[in-house]
This record gives sequence, C-alpha cells and structure tokens, in this order.
Amino acid sequence: MTDTRPAAIVFDTFGSVVDWRGSLIAELSEFGRERGTGGDWTGLVDAWRAAYHPSMDRVRRGELPWTRLDDLHRASLDRLLPQFGISGLAEADLVHINLGWHRLKPWPDAEPGLTRLKSRFVIGPLSNGNLSLLVNLAKFGGLPWDTVFGSDLFGHYKPDPETYLGVARLLDLPPGRVMMAAAHNNDLLAAQKCGLMTAFFARPTEYGPHQKRDYAADGAWDFVAKDIEDLAAQLGC
Amino acid sequence: MTDTRPAAIVFDTFGSVVDWRGSLIAELSEFGRERGTGGDWTGLVDAWRAAYHPSMDRVRRGELPWTRLDDLHRASLDRLLPQFGISGLAEADLVHINLGWHRLKPWPDAEPGLTRLKSRFVIGPLSNGNLSLLVNLAKFGGLPWDTVFGSDLFGHYKPDPETYLGVARLLDLPPGRVMMAAAHNNDLLAAQKCGLMTAFFARPTEYGPHQKRDYAADGAWDFVAKDIEDLAAQLGC
Repeated sequence: MTDTRPAAIVFDTFGSVVDWRGSLIAELSEFGRERGTGGDWTGLVDAWRAAYHPSMDRVRRGELPWTRLDDLHRASLDRLLPQFGISGLAEADLVHINLGWHRLKPWPDAEPGLTRLKSRFVIGPLSNGNLSLLVNLAKFGGLPWDTVFGSDLFGHYKPDPETYLGVARLLDLPPGRVMMAAAHNNDLLAAQKCGLMTAFFARPTEYGPHQKRDYAADGAWDFVAKDIEDLAAQLGC
Repeated sequence: MTDTRPAAIVFDTFGSVVDWRGSLIAELSEFGRERGTGGDWTGLVDAWRAAYHPSMDRVRRGELPWTRLDDLHRASLDRLLPQFGISGLAEADLVHINLGWHRLKPWPDAEPGLTRLKSRFVIGPLSNGNLSLLVNLAKFGGLPWDTVFGSDLFGHYKPDPETYLGVARLLDLPPGRVMMAAAHNNDLLAAQKCGLMTAFFARPTEYGPHQKRDYAADGAWDFVAKDIEDLAAQLGC
C-alpha cells in the first residue's frame, strides 16, 4: 500500500500565510503620518511588490550573484521611494521600513490551521524570504513551524527546482511525501513538476484591487481547500 | 549601550537536550528481547557513541566527502553489531535501529525550559545531526524550536567554525548576539572562539558509568546554569 498522505507540508508564505499588502500599507501609512513624510505609501507598497519577481528573476538568470530577499527589497525600496514622493528618511528609518517584511500579519485561519496540521505533519514555510525573515515573521505572528526553509538555504529562488527538491532532500523524504501548499497556482505547478504533492487555497484579496489571478485552482492539485483550517480538516486534523 | 543579551540561543542536542544513552539502551534492549536477538545492547550503544567523534573526524579531515550523521551512524552500526553478538536482523530492522537516534527522550527540564526561552529568544538546535533527524527528534520529544540547524545546512560538523558562524549568518545576527548552550565545554570553547556567547549546564549522567568530563564548567562562559529551566530563569524568562 502506498502512502497517499504527505509526511511534510511546506507553505508559500507571502500572500498564502501572511497578508503582506494589508500589513505593510497599514504599518507604513501610520509610520509616514507620525514622521510627516507625505507621499503615497499605498502606491509604494504595490510598486515594491511589483518589483519582487523581476528582482528575483535577475538572480535566477545569473545577472546578479546570489542576493538575499532582504537585500533585493532594500535595493527596490531605495529606487522607489522618490517616485512616490517620500523623502527625508534617515538610514535607521530605511532599515526599519525594509524590515516591515518581517512584521506581516497572518491571515486569520493561518495560526489555528497550522497548529492543527502540526499535530500530524512536519510543517514549515518554503518561501523566497531568507531564513531570518521567516523566523522573525513566525515570532511576530505566532506561526508554529517545525522548521524554516528560506531560499538562502538553497541559494535559489522559487520556482527553481533546487528549492522544492532541496526541502525533500533536507527532510530525507521522497518528493512525493512532501506537499507544497500555496495560494499561487504557478508555485504549485513548479512543485508538481518536481514530484511534490500540492494543495491550493485562494487568497482573493492578496493584491487588493490589483488582483488579477489565483481566484481559483487552475491545475490538478491533490487538495483544494477554502483556507488552511479547511486544509487541516480535509487532512483529518 | 550595547546589548548584553543574546537574540538567539542555539543548543547542542545529543546529551545536552536529549538523553541519547538512556533512551537507546531502553529502546534497543526491549527491541532485542522482543526479537530474541541476544547480544549486549548496552555495550553496543556505548560503542556506537564512541564511534561518533572518530567518524565525524574522518569527514572533518577530508578522508570522507560530506556524509550525513544518519549515514555515519549506519556504517558504524553495521561494523559494531557482530562485535556485540547481535545478528539475524533484516534490513528493515537495521533501518529502525539506526533511526533510534531520531527517538531520544528529552531531559525533564528541556521542554519546559525551552518553552520559557522561546518567549523571548529565537531558539534552535545546532547539532551534528542532520536536519531530518533534528526535526524528527523535536516531533518525538515536543521540543518547541523556532527553526532547526542541522550540520547538513553547512556541510560541516562542529567544532568547525562554519557551523557556529553559519547560524549567525542565517539568522542575520552578529556572532555576539547568538549564544551557544551546551553540556560540553569543548563545544562552547569552539563557539566562543567564533565570537558567540556561551551557556553551560552539566549533564553528569550523559555517559552513565563512562562519564569522564563535563561535570562542571571549565571555561569563562557567559552563563553557567543547573539546567535549561535554570538558564531560562537566569535570562529572565
């Protein structure tokens, strides 16, 4: 009899587990008001996230050597701030703003759903964030990971296969006993091509008014759930 | 004002957090009785552990390429079983016995002490075990790590500096904000040479009647505690 259940479940994090957009807009708008900086903080946050994939793609194509996500975020921030009318910040402010990606609120179902899943499965994030970012996010949001898989463990960003296969190698599991869980169909497709199991749940407000995709599962995923608590229920937790 | 407290505390695991000798002797003796193997299981366990440092030293000296601890353990086991009069085991039995290192009981103060420390510090094991072994140990014993540092993340065994400095790099902390906690003075000395803070607590029964050292702190460590709960108390947790 073959196992039809995973032994471990790894979660995409930005958007799938934590609400990066709502968290950053709320925190940075308040920061701007307190400091009287002016500027369009909501526009900054959306542009900052829009710079995320192109900046990682430069690493993935070899145009940049391996660079941690914190450092890619900082380079994008420095370039974008003037475009959104934000100026006059000290270096310590810029460090604080950049570390906003370490202080993102989990979606309401995340902590209770993960706690249920942890009772039966090894759980961890598999994110493009660096390990320190993911550890800080977990402390901030009370995420009960068993261990943390940052992209810096592999020197690769998703969807490079080194990330998905690297998790299976480190957990000493066949890829088919590891399940990737995400609100992003393209992440699951890349994981599935590496032999991992897959679970989808939608986060239809992740990008606010700019959401263009991922309202529903569009692949043959092993599980399709409403959210992480529903995934736990489907897995008998 | 400089920080005099660590931001993260990493723990040696075999002997410091879990009782490898008592756990393995109890489990394997029972296994041998059930299977009617005969043989000296206590002798096997002590000899198996005695093979630990020499086997890692072969990797550290470059006589072997990088080899995970699970695989070093298995090679030593295969060599030692006949010496202790144990024979007639199937491959599945040997796999099960070798994974005994994934099923070690924590010392009684470990889980409550770590839970207290987790409220203020990032905590994780920094062990010569591979990541999968350490994740399984944590699941088995309820150890509440924030993340897990296995030697396979670094391709080096302690006391190589790549392990201590690798943790600081992955946590994005200066070495002086990371504290190594262990029941082994030599581990702390190597960590201190890398600039880490240090905490000692004794485990005087770790090696049973074969214990020869580490009854007390013998270096200038930042903290000397009775056990992990006492360390938590000294750190205000």
